[in-house]
Amino acid sequence: MKDNYCVIMGGGIGSRFWPFSRESYPKQFLDFFGSGRSLLQMTFDRFAKIIPVENIYIVTNEAYAKLIAEQLPEINESQILLEPCRRNTAPCIAYASYHIKACNPNANIVVAPSDHLILKEDAFLRDVQKGLEFVKENKALVTLGIRPSRPKTGYGYIQSSDTMLGDFTKVKTFTEKPNLELAKIFQESGEFFWNSGLFLWNVNSILDAFEKFLPDITARFNLGMDKFNTPEEKDFIQENFPCCLNISIDYGIMEKADNVYMLCVDFRWADLGTWGSLHDLYKKDLNRNAILKTNAMLYECSGNIIALNDPNRLVVVQGLDDFIIAESGNVLLICKKEDEARIKEFVADAQLKYEKEFI
Amino acid sequence: MKDNYCVIMGGGIGSRFWPFSRESYPKQFLDFFGSGRSLLQMTFDRFAKIIPVENIYIVTNEAYAKLIAEQLPEINESQILLEPCRRNTAPCIAYASYHIKACNPNANIVVAPSDHLILKEDAFLRDVQKGLEFVKENKALVTLGIRPSRPKTGYGYIQSSDTMLGDFTKVKTFTEKPNLELAKIFQESGEFFWNSGLFLWNVNSILDAFEKFLPDITARFNLGMDKFNTPEEKDFIQENFPCCLNISIDYGIMEKADNVYMLCVDFRWADLGTWGSLHDLYKKDLNRNAILKTNAMLYECSGNIIALNDPNRLVVVQGLDDFIIAESGNVLLICKKEDEARIKEFVADAQLKYEKEFI
Repeated sequence: MKDNYCVIMGGGIGSRFWPFSRESYPKQFLDFFGSGRSLLQMTFDRFAKIIPVENIYIVTNEAYAKLIAEQLPEINESQILLEPCRRNTAPCIAYASYHIKACNPNANIVVAPSDHLILKEDAFLRDVQKGLEFVKENKALVTLGIRPSRPKTGYGYIQSSDTMLGDFTKVKTFTEKPNLELAKIFQESGEFFWNSGLFLWNVNSILDAFEKFLPDITARFNLGMDKFNTPEEKDFIQENFPCCLNISIDYGIMEKADNVYMLCVDFRWADLGTWGSLHDLYKKDLNRNAILKTNAMLYECSGNIIALNDPNRLVVVQGLDDFIIAESGNVLLICKKEDEARIKEFVADAQLKYEKEFI
Repeated sequence: MKDNYCVIMGGGIGSRFWPFSRESYPKQFLDFFGSGRSLLQMTFDRFAKIIPVENIYIVTNEAYAKLIAEQLPEINESQILLEPCRRNTAPCIAYASYHIKACNPNANIVVAPSDHLILKEDAFLRDVQKGLEFVKENKALVTLGIRPSRPKTGYGYIQSSDTMLGDFTKVKTFTEKPNLELAKIFQESGEFFWNSGLFLWNVNSILDAFEKFLPDITARFNLGMDKFNTPEEKDFIQENFPCCLNISIDYGIMEKADNVYMLCVDFRWADLGTWGSLHDLYKKDLNRNAILKTNAMLYECSGNIIALNDPNRLVVVQGLDDFIIAESGNVLLICKKEDEARIKEFVADAQLKYEKEFI
């Protein structure tokens, strides 16, 4: 138990959830479900049930240090690892791994995004514990795979093989987000699983994988080997982190390594990546309208997601189908649900036109 | 000149402009065009150019006494005539007429709504002066008629006759709002004119007409004949005004009297009655979107009216045609422009559901 660690990655901007998610207050800090806890807090709460609180780390961008400390008063400042700039998941995980290795050279680590929704928590915790046991005994990189309930194009997929090690299946390939046709074939095949982005490994296994597949990152962090978990760590990171390659752990390691195993899990998981995914999960009225946090009166409306970040307001909508209506702070967004991928474009345009005012 | 008076009717709620227009802050108090002056103030400013300021009266609901005094510091409190309840235009005009008669038994009066838009002010002022001259010399009830520029269904129409008195045409009939087919016939005939709701008469002419066509109202006001323009007026009105018939001046008098004359005018007038009428008047982008008071970024949008009552906000809209998007205070309204007549229904529903909170 004391060798078990958790790394929560909480540095994303979540611009696909704009205007709820803002650069200064990204989605992981928001309470989308009115539970009183943000996505980050719910993630922390889950892991705190099976991992010692002092072994839970948050890796995030410097800009969110204060927000994290506010939302998670349970953790010590030293458990918040700050990235001076955004370099995707591989450098983020490398940093956390080096830090944890300096604390505990036998650490078994579960790495998790801060913005996922997990509905069956008991099953989730059982699977994570099973994974931690497995990576303690096996020099394996483990990913949790979800059996697809529909041909989703927005997720990455993992192809399983016939080679098993206990309940763990050797992974054949990782694939990028497929088109709908391919996603249907994936789902029907029974061989493909959603890549949850939840990883487990022993600290030495992942550091070995970095050395093998991302040697530049390893070389860079090795320069500060004696500085991790000391007062010098911060300066070292400030200087060296920005020099790391901007690359994801999936692309940089998982797709290349030959010791990747998958545990097929069923804890009703969702990557709360977009307004559409929120619509899928949210309670809906008879006309499939999902209404978040506001008073709403709808006339001849169906399939909309209506989210006003203020419970003291009223929205009246008539004659609209399958739209996103999202308002937060000084921004109101109205766009077709099927075109939600363009929200990133809108944010970029708004930044060009108005600089930081509405971002 | 000193015999010329103006009565501005400013007691309406303007619920067709909800949520901009609120029961506590109706549309006549709003600055729709960013000119720095509300519709009421613009109306006052116009008349103040040709009528002594001390002869300009505002009749309004008690609820708006403070707003009027704030918006029109130029006038004296005694020039604000307060209705204790809503009784449509006939009792309103009767009250103002009795009050003015007590001040000046030879008064010539122009009566005007507080929410009209007039684009050619010089022509307007010339026509009003011509009308005031006419009603001084002739015992006539005068209305200003606008030659229809298109077959508008939302307006009342006036049918002219061949009988002329100077530039003034004797009116044959008033008609209610026609359907589109009829409105087309009206426009093509050349005989029909829009009823502007601007009236002129000598105080004795209108009081005689009340006696003839609305004798109950006359009887009621005659009870207080010696109280008008004295400190007792207020109590008398409090007690007697609510007993008056709820009826419009058009229906109660103008449609029935045989001394109604029309001056055909052309001062580019609009009854700013609905969001649609505002869309017609407002500056539009290449895709016919009218954007009021806000920062907006539109993608694949046409024919919309987008009005956020806050210049420090941003609205991003994608994939919407011919909608009203109006936000003010704690309410956001999104509805089809062609269904704007239903806004009254939405307001009524909101009142049922939430009482006064959003009204």
